[in-house]
Amino acid sequence: MRVHEQDLEPLSVGAAILGAGGGGDPLIGKLMAQQAMAEHGAVELLDAADLEDEAVVFPVAMMGAPTVFLEKIPAGDETSLAVQRMERHLNQRVTALCPVECGGMNSMIPFVVAARMGLPVVDGDGMGRAFPELQMETFHVFGVSGTPACIADEWGNVVLFETVDNYRLESFARACTVKMGGYSHLVDYPMTGAQMKQSAVRGTISMCIQLGRALEDAKREHRNPVEAVLAATAGTLYGHGVRLFFGKVVDVSRRTRDGFAVGKAVLRGVEQDADREMTIEFQNENLVALVDGEVVATVPDIIALLDPETGLPVTNERLRYGQRAVVIGIPTPQIMRTDAALAVWGPRQFGYDVPFIPLEQKNAAFYRQVGVPKDKEHLLAAK
Amino acid sequence: MRVHEQDLEPLSVGAAILGAGGGGDPLIGKLMAQQAMAEHGAVELLDAADLEDEAVVFPVAMMGAPTVFLEKIPAGDETSLAVQRMERHLNQRVTALCPVECGGMNSMIPFVVAARMGLPVVDGDGMGRAFPELQMETFHVFGVSGTPACIADEWGNVVLFETVDNYRLESFARACTVKMGGYSHLVDYPMTGAQMKQSAVRGTISMCIQLGRALEDAKREHRNPVEAVLAATAGTLYGHGVRLFFGKVVDVSRRTRDGFAVGKAVLRGVEQDADREMTIEFQNENLVALVDGEVVATVPDIIALLDPETGLPVTNERLRYGQRAVVIGIPTPQIMRTDAALAVWGPRQFGYDVPFIPLEQKNAAFYRQVGVPKDKEHLLAAK
Repeated sequence: MRVHEQDLEPLSVGAAILGAGGGGDPLIGKLMAQQAMAEHGAVELLDAADLEDEAVVFPVAMMGAPTVFLEKIPAGDETSLAVQRMERHLNQRVTALCPVECGGMNSMIPFVVAARMGLPVVDGDGMGRAFPELQMETFHVFGVSGTPACIADEWGNVVLFETVDNYRLESFARACTVKMGGYSHLVDYPMTGAQMKQSAVRGTISMCIQLGRALEDAKREHRNPVEAVLAATAGTLYGHGVRLFFGKVVDVSRRTRDGFAVGKAVLRGVEQDADREMTIEFQNENLVALVDGEVVATVPDIIALLDPETGLPVTNERLRYGQRAVVIGIPTPQIMRTDAALAVWGPRQFGYDVPFIPLEQKNAAFYRQVGVPKDKEHLLAAK
Repeated sequence: MRVHEQDLEPLSVGAAILGAGGGGDPLIGKLMAQQAMAEHGAVELLDAADLEDEAVVFPVAMMGAPTVFLEKIPAGDETSLAVQRMERHLNQRVTALCPVECGGMNSMIPFVVAARMGLPVVDGDGMGRAFPELQMETFHVFGVSGTPACIADEWGNVVLFETVDNYRLESFARACTVKMGGYSHLVDYPMTGAQMKQSAVRGTISMCIQLGRALEDAKREHRNPVEAVLAATAGTLYGHGVRLFFGKVVDVSRRTRDGFAVGKAVLRGVEQDADREMTIEFQNENLVALVDGEVVATVPDIIALLDPETGLPVTNERLRYGQRAVVIGIPTPQIMRTDAALAVWGPRQFGYDVPFIPLEQKNAAFYRQVGVPKDKEHLLAAK
């Protein structure tokens, strides 16, 4: 399969849904990838299963504050610099790139670099959604070293990290990224094909394209866009998305703490949710959703706000008073919910004193009806 | 010439004098160097003139907050890790080390590493005193690149920098150093013997030992220690030190800004300076000294406070109300006073709206009497 210029729009929309309110605005990344493909052509999308064990895979991303991209637009070749510098550092040629996460910006970056460098992109990533920190990767959960890692800026400054753990990588790279003006171009977790096969959340790029296409089709065919998104999740590794709430934003409080946008949104219910209230706690990404004080979804499951008219995802930096939104939950693959994974990105890791309860358990009746992927059947039995 | 264990005490005292109130407390560094020499023997001190042009010289240092060393004492081999990592990065073997500055701590570090690794130390450095930032080096003034540079911490974390200018090196390395817990072990400005010969302030280690020895001799012979220090500066590349003030500390204000100790000390005059008042502005190091509002000495010339009884230098972190001190000025070598050098560390670079006036000009009568180095004779003529 090849990813063409016309796939970038649906990919960016789908990635913003899996981005769970974070992951950055898709506009700049999409423009960058479109330009790179217009100049250099389409990019091959590799199934992880087809990777050679000896393949050299570099996850690539932008690190830092998404809001800064809008003011300080990248030239487009900065990530290539980081990739080339990492090749020289390892004395190895990279054979494939992959995203570190699903998000409006970071699902695009691998295609910008891949088009320019003539490389394939692996259909999978290390978060299966968006997360704010570098150790929050399935790569980390499976013991892949985040370093050597490399960040570069638009001036040609390069910093290489060799740390004894991935938390230190996050700490040092974050500090330098701030000094680089708010964002940097990152290569981390360089790994073999064998490691990628074991540790990646697979199929996320094709799934994002599928979600975005479902919205395009629904628009053309005048179908309900939110229902189209939910239907498009059926049969994926994630499992069927579920409608959690329909409401109007009545309060958004947001502050910047340590470079992250931390806050909460309150939605007053409408239609079938009239007289109920949803609160969504976020730290860049939506992390916990409560209805009338009861937790209905938590990280790592995906909590996304969709515009009821267009079905387009609303990222947190665009959340405004008075906005109407359908809140949906998308269950995450089991690889993102193991004890080892929850120890890195469970609700408690973000400071919320609540356990992770899978959407399938919380909405067992619904999931008995729509079905769950085979590896999740025990969740319904357990209920 | 070899530097032996018994040279370390006078070296650390002399370095604290040239450290101009900064440069860190000498205690920990001295203990580390003494232990390394007790285990591995004395270290060869190389005259810069005797360096091969092709020699590979690494300046080594501790970067960060001196106060942290006292609480988080280094194991001693962390700087060796940074040196070895830099050798591998450059694919070159280092043939000599040198200090980056004169200071209680950083005049010792090269001897810790040199003893352990069996390397010589070059008799010279890149500041000729202590300065707070990495671009404040004669190496920088002469166009040597500060990078590739490497910092390491006690856990084995390593960060390598390749920056387009030395100010960025300072910015990124400072940010990572803070995240490393307050200090790091640094190799920067890796250079050839030819570059070292051109850009170093020469003879600073032997001069520091000479100043420290003068104090030891004075103590043994019951001579005035301050006069002994001043006399020991005669005939050096720096030129004769001058007594600026004798007073009692009546006020010290100090605050930490961006990791630096910024403040001022006020001394009420005693004896011949009775009825006069000196103010010393410092940012880690003493930068400007005024008597009754008139500037009497400025950076880069050295402003040092000596205990009137022992002649020992008082670093700013030990400055206390009620303390009596003789304030001396030591003129700096011409290499530290060029227009290019003053553009990096003149008073205006630290935010003081005063020009640099050489001590020799300000105290012309005194210098006509005691003489100046040949390359400074124009300063007296100009007056």
